[in-house]
Amino acid sequence: MLKVLFPGSFDPPTNGHFNLIERAASIFDQLEIVIAVNIQKSYLFSPEERFDLVSTNVGHLSNVKVHLWDRLIVEFARKEGIRVIIRGVRALDDFSHEFELSMINKGLDHNIETFFMPTDPQFFVLRSSSIKELVLLNGDISSMVPPKVESALKAKLLGA
Amino acid sequence: MLKVLFPGSFDPPTNGHFNLIERAASIFDQLEIVIAVNIQKSYLFSPEERFDLVSTNVGHLSNVKVHLWDRLIVEFARKEGIRVIIRGVRALDDFSHEFELSMINKGLDHNIETFFMPTDPQFFVLRSSSIKELVLLNGDISSMVPPKVESALKAKLLGA
Amino acid sequence: MLKVLFPGSFDPPTNGHFNLIERAASIFDQLEIVIAVNIQKSYLFSPEERFDLVSTNVGHLSNVKVHLWDRLIVEFARKEGIRVIIRGVRALDDFSHEFELSMINKGLDHNIETFFMPTDPQFFVLRSSSIKELVLLNGDISSMVPPKVESALKAKLLGA
Amino acid sequence: MLKVLFPGSFDPPTNGHFNLIERAASIFDQLEIVIAVNIQKSYLFSPEERFDLVSTNVGHLSNVKVHLWDRLIVEFARKEGIRVIIRGVRALDDFSHEFELSMINKGLDHNIETFFMPTDPQFFVLRSSSIKELVLLNGDISSMVPPKVESALKAKLLGA
Amino acid sequence: MLKVLFPGSFDPPTNGHFNLIERAASIFDQLEIVIAVNIQKSYLFSPEERFDLVSTNVGHLSNVKVHLWDRLIVEFARKEGIRVIIRGVRALDDFSHEFELSMINKGLDHNIETFFMPTDPQFFVLRSSSIKELVLLNGDISSMVPPKVESALKAKLLGA
Amino acid sequence: MLKVLFPGSFDPPTNGHFNLIERAASIFDQLEIVIAVNIQKSYLFSPEERFDLVSTNVGHLSNVKVHLWDRLIVEFARKEGIRVIIRGVRALDDFSHEFELSMINKGLDHNIETFFMPTDPQFFVLRSSSIKELVLLNGDISSMVPPKVESALKAKLLGA
Repeated sequence: MLKVLFPGSFDPPTNGHFNLIERAASIFDQLEIVIAVNIQKSYLFSPEERFDLVSTNVGHLSNVKVHLWDRLIVEFARKEGIRVIIRGVRALDDFSHEFELSMINKGLDHNIETFFMPTDPQFFVLRSSSIKELVLLNGDISSMVPPKVESALKAKLLGA
Repeated sequence: MLKVLFPGSFDPPTNGHFNLIERAASIFDQLEIVIAVNIQKSYLFSPEERFDLVSTNVGHLSNVKVHLWDRLIVEFARKEGIRVIIRGVRALDDFSHEFELSMINKGLDHNIETFFMPTDPQFFVLRSSSIKELVLLNGDISSMVPPKVESALKAKLLGA
Repeated sequence: MLKVLFPGSFDPPTNGHFNLIERAASIFDQLEIVIAVNIQKSYLFSPEERFDLVSTNVGHLSNVKVHLWDRLIVEFARKEGIRVIIRGVRALDDFSHEFELSMINKGLDHNIETFFMPTDPQFFVLRSSSIKELVLLNGDISSMVPPKVESALKAKLLGA
Repeated sequence: MLKVLFPGSFDPPTNGHFNLIERAASIFDQLEIVIAVNIQKSYLFSPEERFDLVSTNVGHLSNVKVHLWDRLIVEFARKEGIRVIIRGVRALDDFSHEFELSMINKGLDHNIETFFMPTDPQFFVLRSSSIKELVLLNGDISSMVPPKVESALKAKLLGA
Repeated sequence: MLKVLFPGSFDPPTNGHFNLIERAASIFDQLEIVIAVNIQKSYLFSPEERFDLVSTNVGHLSNVKVHLWDRLIVEFARKEGIRVIIRGVRALDDFSHEFELSMINKGLDHNIETFFMPTDPQFFVLRSSSIKELVLLNGDISSMVPPKVESALKAKLLGA
Repeated sequence: MLKVLFPGSFDPPTNGHFNLIERAASIFDQLEIVIAVNIQKSYLFSPEERFDLVSTNVGHLSNVKVHLWDRLIVEFARKEGIRVIIRGVRALDDFSHEFELSMINKGLDHNIETFFMPTDPQFFVLRSSSIKELVLLNGDISSMVPPKVESALKAKLLGA
């Protein structure tokens, strides 16, 4: 059985995340989504809110579980006996940054491999930061995030 | 008549901006400079100051108008019946970022096209952030910004 | 009246080229397609074949003309009084190469400006060289080139 | 059971290839190495020689098989019911090229996913072309390829 | 006698810095390490702490001196009659940023040359920011910084 | 005494090369220009012609010598007791390629360091291949190469 780990901030999760999750879940036996909780960073949504926004959109995938985690990602992997981390990479992304993260993780545990999955073209521009800015300017984000994430964003950012 | 839009923060405007504006104004019938006012971001100069620093240096160009705008750029374009956004790109710049912005704008309105104009080599290093840092360290910026912008920067940053 | 120039090898022309041509033709008054004939280079299609493959697919655009040209592109521009060269850039493309070409052209004639138009995402992978390789391996290219280009490619490469 | 495909020219195979093969073989149930035979390209080693040089160095891996293939990679994948293609990416590599290949393959069969595995740092410079050039200049390549590949290269290039 | 300057924040210094310093010190007659003190920036370690963390690890190099400096780097160079600035560049680094800095410095004083030294592969991932994050998550950093820097980081970040 | 090595094909040498040579020669005690002679590659100019075109333009620099060399660059360095290779890098260049070369050379001899010198902006577009193409199309190259190189190019390419 091949179990893989899909880590991220998911602040908020986008259609790009869910596309990657569905594609990976159809290939691997089990996919563990790990939502990073880093007290040094400031998030728009609380850990619990991010957990809900992710969970509610992966409920139909029986081999996917969602976790909150506030330590090193490689420790979660070791605890669960997972050797593979999946990361999405966009054509327009900073590939170097992802490469570097993968080298740091391999340096911390040389059994851990990172696989990069190319993002599908229609999701190339779905940066969480751009989506937040669009909401603030009343831009249409309905093609970028699921309906529940859209409502949560508007409630949080516009008080609406 | 071909009207185009040249958006930016202009915090402050540099010789690189004015070079692009002059070149674009000599090609298109009308150039609308749109100074972005984004309440989420902190600027060194107020919207009014940025408006003045830009306006005072384009007064000789009869087909150029300056605007302040606090909503989506594509809304300004639609309101004015403009289909073309002009952006300068530097060889040393993050081209991906500009490409992404252009895709977001096209996603918001598929009639909007972004054209990238290559920055002339002598302006490759004119990042507004570097210029501010040079002022603070008493570096010579007289080749980087027009005299009025230089005085405004010194007044603002050095109280001089 | 704003006339622009769209140069290239078009060996063969792809749906990506025609998408750029349609978008540019809807913005500018007149678009001159210039097919480069460079005796140093070897092409799959002859100049006349490339002329036909381009022409047959732009017949519906009344403000587009097609030309064969075996000298410097800036000389064509000067001869026709054109100041703007349009080039498509793909997110996955070698942007540096295009930037360099634009600087060479500006060095040859400082009145010539190059504008880069971002390729639409569905056309990101349409390199002429990849299309030829796909034809040789019987891959489906019907979404990549117009029907007449597809037949011409098969006739040329497969003798079919 | 998760079977994956590892395609390449392997002209010749390097320690970088074998490192990726060992790492992938330790994760997936079955790894099919597919050596591309493309009549349009000229290779240093014949298909049979490349088959031997790869096979002889993966004999200890019971879940790895080696194949020669002269058609589209996605056709091999379909024939074998494989959905995952593995490609190594180097920090110094042209990531765009790999991204583009993955998009072409997905365009040919949307069930095919490409996963990129980052090359380990000690193999960053192992381009087959550089290795051939080093052999011709009597450079030491013993850390770059297995002994049998080294002898084959010297025999082929130096007649020694 | 060829004297060169090695500037940086060193917040904290890493094994990557010391590797570059040792390599450069073995080539040039004299190496001046200049620790930038920029009141606009916030550092983890005070100027004095950074001075100590650097000094204590270069004591064995007789041709290396350490300095604190709160003005333009080119002014230090001029004051000392130095014409060469050495900067490390990582394969995974933002090379454009370094190129830009070198052009700014040359713009400030055209006698100043910047030489880029490639970082050795084992130090590719040693960003000071990543190291701080690893400390906070109890990751093992003993291969990334000298023992005294490791203790200082733990004392500062974990109060341990 | 610090002796450095400046290797290249110089087919032909450009103003960009001579700019780098002058700058490096003003810093180091001795500069050895090494013209690579690689029988696998085809050059426009013969080794002797390249030697003459380089030599005739560096005659005024008393600490510069020109050499032809058909073996590994690191062997020349070892023979002459040189530890430093200088390479120019352009903002628009393939930096990865240079980084890789430097790692190969260091792999062949770990005492050899490569320093990258940034090309001055006015020389960003001086690729030898572009210059040859311009000559064939009668483009003006007088700002790109010294007069003797210009005549040699015209004689060779245009028989003029």
